[in-house]
Amino acid sequence: MSPDECDECDECETESGAPAPFSRHVHTGRLHRAADQAAAARLTGLLVTPGPDLTWLCGHWRGAAPDRLTLLVLTPEAEPRLLVPARDLADASAGPAAGAVRLTAWADDQDPYAAAAGLLLPHGHYGITDATWSVHLLGLEEALPLTTYRPLSTALPLFRAVKDEEETARLATAAAAVDAAYEAALALRFTGRRESELAADLAGLLRAHGHDRVDRARVACGTHGADPRHRPGEHRIEPGDTVVLDLGGRRDGYASVLTRTVHVGPPPDKVRRLHEIVRTAQEAALAVMLPGVPCGEVDRAARAVLTNAGHGADALPVTGHGLGVTPYEPPYLAPGATRLLAPGMCVQVGAGVLLPGRLGVRLGDTVVCTTDGVRRLGGTDPALGVVT
Amino acid sequence: MSPDECDECDECETESGAPAPFSRHVHTGRLHRAADQAAAARLTGLLVTPGPDLTWLCGHWRGAAPDRLTLLVLTPEAEPRLLVPARDLADASAGPAAGAVRLTAWADDQDPYAAAAGLLLPHGHYGITDATWSVHLLGLEEALPLTTYRPLSTALPLFRAVKDEEETARLATAAAAVDAAYEAALALRFTGRRESELAADLAGLLRAHGHDRVDRARVACGTHGADPRHRPGEHRIEPGDTVVLDLGGRRDGYASVLTRTVHVGPPPDKVRRLHEIVRTAQEAALAVMLPGVPCGEVDRAARAVLTNAGHGADALPVTGHGLGVTPYEPPYLAPGATRLLAPGMCVQVGAGVLLPGRLGVRLGDTVVCTTDGVRRLGGTDPALGVVT
Repeated sequence: MSPDECDECDECETESGAPAPFSRHVHTGRLHRAADQAAAARLTGLLVTPGPDLTWLCGHWRGAAPDRLTLLVLTPEAEPRLLVPARDLADASAGPAAGAVRLTAWADDQDPYAAAAGLLLPHGHYGITDATWSVHLLGLEEALPLTTYRPLSTALPLFRAVKDEEETARLATAAAAVDAAYEAALALRFTGRRESELAADLAGLLRAHGHDRVDRARVACGTHGADPRHRPGEHRIEPGDTVVLDLGGRRDGYASVLTRTVHVGPPPDKVRRLHEIVRTAQEAALAVMLPGVPCGEVDRAARAVLTNAGHGADALPVTGHGLGVTPYEPPYLAPGATRLLAPGMCVQVGAGVLLPGRLGVRLGDTVVCTTDGVRRLGGTDPALGVVT
Repeated sequence: MSPDECDECDECETESGAPAPFSRHVHTGRLHRAADQAAAARLTGLLVTPGPDLTWLCGHWRGAAPDRLTLLVLTPEAEPRLLVPARDLADASAGPAAGAVRLTAWADDQDPYAAAAGLLLPHGHYGITDATWSVHLLGLEEALPLTTYRPLSTALPLFRAVKDEEETARLATAAAAVDAAYEAALALRFTGRRESELAADLAGLLRAHGHDRVDRARVACGTHGADPRHRPGEHRIEPGDTVVLDLGGRRDGYASVLTRTVHVGPPPDKVRRLHEIVRTAQEAALAVMLPGVPCGEVDRAARAVLTNAGHGADALPVTGHGLGVTPYEPPYLAPGATRLLAPGMCVQVGAGVLLPGRLGVRLGDTVVCTTDGVRRLGGTDPALGVVT
């Protein structure tokens, strides 16, 4: 580990600063619910290091480099404890969750794992953030040889999946921002421009319409549209191209995602028909989304429409995924997925037909699950866009 | 783990694409030297997951999401093996190291840890990348209960620290780029502008002068200069302010870092004198840098000058650090550091006086260690800059 801060990259600190904090009350509620989830999963507790889970539980504060141990210890019995490097103590004390957790610091001349061991049960069985650096897990394993660990994603697969009203409101604001960016993009000139140039414009529009950070501004033109992993390149867009736009960013700490397909000039019937099929598939997915429905059923509903239309083999591999403080998280609307939908889950629901060597047609929108169906967050027209 | 790619963020893929690849020969040489280092450290081998170490060993290829197991297994006896998710196989096969490693893929319906276990010795003792996600380490520990692991930073503390000629050449090009950005910055108007506005300009200059990515464009004005962790804020710069500029980014996969202090208008004697002390401290550090000298001695040399000038308590906590494919890596020129300098190490060497509530004066430049001293990479004037 480094003797001073890693400081590797400022990119996570946006120019406009950290997202607006939630109240201490919100964090206390999240910490309690997470501890309850841990107990229900028969864990001694949860160990959470810097990343989306910690931000969600404790809010954002300056510091928290991944190479220096910062560890939230959350158990059903005791008050939450947050261990931080001594130099981060002042910032953590000023952070939104300061009143919701009890802070402890380890000094530069101290072994952070010995300090952490003092907060854990020697025979405990803890869920630990998937992304926690191995150097920390090895340090804990050495300090407490009889303690065992499970990845958080296995132990609590739906951790953070159900959003509260304030989270849903932020996701709706982010969805409105990506809608506005897309609507502005329809006025851009596409013909003759490189994918990468257009992508740069789209990134600018995402920022101009309120995103603090851009996660994706993808442009896949013509045959590239059939590759969901295509990154904007030097290819120039021509009249008659079908173009897939995949957009997203963060606003106030919550993610937006939107996928739309546009056509340069009047779309031929063939493209219109494909788009209609994709839209019907997406509608079919949305129609089955009720509390208690397995995620795999949503995927199956979309896939059935595509299969009936002769495009079963051309479907996107996955119909959708959750979003929140990250743009890609559980639940996954994937083939065979057994997790059950619940009110408050916010998911991107998409559909697509990928015809390698020809084109791709895709759609993707964000919805929140309710007690009797879904409610769209954002409301931009899903129709095939027509651009010049 | 997610059923599809994480895709969380495109930011690591720069608009201008991946860095120019090194030749297969270069990668083969690095892989051999790393395996030799592992043997010398009495390790069975090294396990490397996506990140700077893997990029350095195997080059950059598309894919390699941290949540899906991608694992390089490097041992002194056998040829290097690279395990990748099946969907990344084509990209990895087209990557720069394809000829230098033997590729294996795990399919979506396969357990990646079982696949990895087939490449490891059941009783082996491996060095593993510090930043490898715990979910992977737990998966390996379950698949191979008798295999043991050590963090790579503990096992091989100077891994990647000695640069070859091609790496040094790239670092020199990056240093020239940050120099040019700084020189252009001297012509900017500082007076009346917010730190954050100026920081945005500096980020633009870093890009305009050849950086593919900006790591830091920090502006710390007046009292903020005394806080090395200050992030540019809404404070407006005024005539008479001393301003610390801390700049850096990546060019062609290699990092630049440069720290300079400027004064708005004619600097008073007091600031000139402080700057002279800091410059002398930096020169003193550079003067002792010979092969075999412990890193702590370099720090001591700088600190001694500051102490003699009555500023021992105001010194920066660390005098310098290595840089390469990352902007902050071993060796660390920190108090008491026992690692020995060696020809080919590239380090940022700085000095600073921090006077809380008043101002900060800092300098930092990049040098490469040679057989008889150091050679500067980049050559912009270390003098106190004067701006308007």
